[in-house]
Amino acid sequence: MSALEGAADGFEFDADTAVEPLGRGRFGGVVSPRWSIGPYPNGGYLLALAMAAVRRTATLPDPMAVSAHFLRPSEHAHPCEIEVATVRSGRSHATLEARLAQDGVERLRAIATLGDLGALTGGGPTAELGTPPDLPPLASCPRDRGGARALPNGLVAAIRDRLDVRFDPSTLGFANASPSGRGLMQGWVRLRDGREPDTAALVLLCDCLPPAVFDIVVGGWVPTLELTVHIRARPSPGWLACRFTTTHLRDGYLEEAGEIWDSAGVMVCQSLQFARVNPPPSSG
Amino acid sequence: MSALEGAADGFEFDADTAVEPLGRGRFGGVVSPRWSIGPYPNGGYLLALAMAAVRRTATLPDPMAVSAHFLRPSEHAHPCEIEVATVRSGRSHATLEARLAQDGVERLRAIATLGDLGALTGGGPTAELGTPPDLPPLASCPRDRGGARALPNGLVAAIRDRLDVRFDPSTLGFANASPSGRGLMQGWVRLRDGREPDTAALVLLCDCLPPAVFDIVVGGWVPTLELTVHIRARPSPGWLACRFTTTHLRDGYLEEAGEIWDSAGVMVCQSLQFARVNPPPSSG
Repeated sequence: MSALEGAADGFEFDADTAVEPLGRGRFGGVVSPRWSIGPYPNGGYLLALAMAAVRRTATLPDPMAVSAHFLRPSEHAHPCEIEVATVRSGRSHATLEARLAQDGVERLRAIATLGDLGALTGGGPTAELGTPPDLPPLASCPRDRGGARALPNGLVAAIRDRLDVRFDPSTLGFANASPSGRGLMQGWVRLRDGREPDTAALVLLCDCLPPAVFDIVVGGWVPTLELTVHIRARPSPGWLACRFTTTHLRDGYLEEAGEIWDSAGVMVCQSLQFARVNPPPSSG
Repeated sequence: MSALEGAADGFEFDADTAVEPLGRGRFGGVVSPRWSIGPYPNGGYLLALAMAAVRRTATLPDPMAVSAHFLRPSEHAHPCEIEVATVRSGRSHATLEARLAQDGVERLRAIATLGDLGALTGGGPTAELGTPPDLPPLASCPRDRGGARALPNGLVAAIRDRLDVRFDPSTLGFANASPSGRGLMQGWVRLRDGREPDTAALVLLCDCLPPAVFDIVVGGWVPTLELTVHIRARPSPGWLACRFTTTHLRDGYLEEAGEIWDSAGVMVCQSLQFARVNPPPSSG
């Protein structure tokens, strides 16, 4: 589907993060089933939904540093309420807090510091010591065939139908129960309906690939306990090069560190999450 | 000073993070001047002070994932009030929120997920793919001579008198205005009065060395905007091997990623902070 066709119906990401003000800092939304892994909504999607309410409240447009703690599983195809409070509102940065609840039970709490990445002059100290993900050309990266086929953990993931992911084949060992042991998951990513990336979508996209820990230990359910996202620049249109790594797996707890580089070669988003490998949930 | 001598008077870290309950989730404390850089309290110290109130409230002992947003500069040698609320209290994890204010103005807001690292069985999936900081032996690392001499940014740092830091000499280029350009700051660290590290002190120690960005751009004032800390294990007594790196410096904004390894070779603490290089403050 081209970007134009997508726009006619509204893009999936925008439709599924739409929130309506309910007054006094409260917003209503629906946790869509379209971004789930098995019965569980993706953590990045849930945070993007909460951030939609934050962005409706803030005077500055771009999330720059977002920290989210996931308290309990949330339910998809189910409404939610997001409560937003401004903690501090300044000229260059504003900090807000969001609480996402379903049926009166809080599922996610986040603190977000926003700024205006479009207002940066480029005149400040700059040094890029990193390198973009070392990915084969797009044509050599197999396209993920979507969510109809179960993942190695037995779960069917609807989120795979929302994304166009071209995996680095060397990180796909998990699909055949032969992980490389490097703790690496990387590939080219864009939204399948042609919606271009922006700073709102990066909050989702930094949690969009299968867990990098699958490249060490295959299977299991890897719920996010905490997710930190740093956004450095508004991404250019086109494919994003994404690299996620798990280096320290200890007694089931792990980190996943991520970088997203845009089509102009800019490191636009860095993430660090804290998660735990659990046995897969009993049913989908 | 030996650990025993320190204990007789009480250790500095414990004295300076002592908080008293004021009722209804409120705690009183004092932001000590002993952990400052120029006029500004160290971010890790301020978070450790807020976490002291969290630990007094939580039913689980160890911070596992802590996210803090720094809202405004705080004042040292000045009282503070910390308000703590329990967000969720579960069997293996509890999440709490802390707000640190001075003179009724909030300076720091944090969300912390705690657990019991002593209760982990070691039976869960484990793989350490990282390597400890590549440090010369202790005897080859110069000892920081303390805070009387100003840093390259013109600030006198009292925190240097609280720590015993033995720098990797290859990362000390900043002291002679000749940074290596690698964005690396590393060394052996312990508290100077002999207090052994624990999960409370790691929250401070993950922000205790000069900014790694000084190994790229010397000088300036580098306030922390956001600090995320993941704690994986209770540290063994002895020296800690600490490595902090800045890889992406863009228009004055930067990340600092850290790892702390204990004397038993365990990666006990991982951190990621978001900060900004500013011109030095005009006066100390």
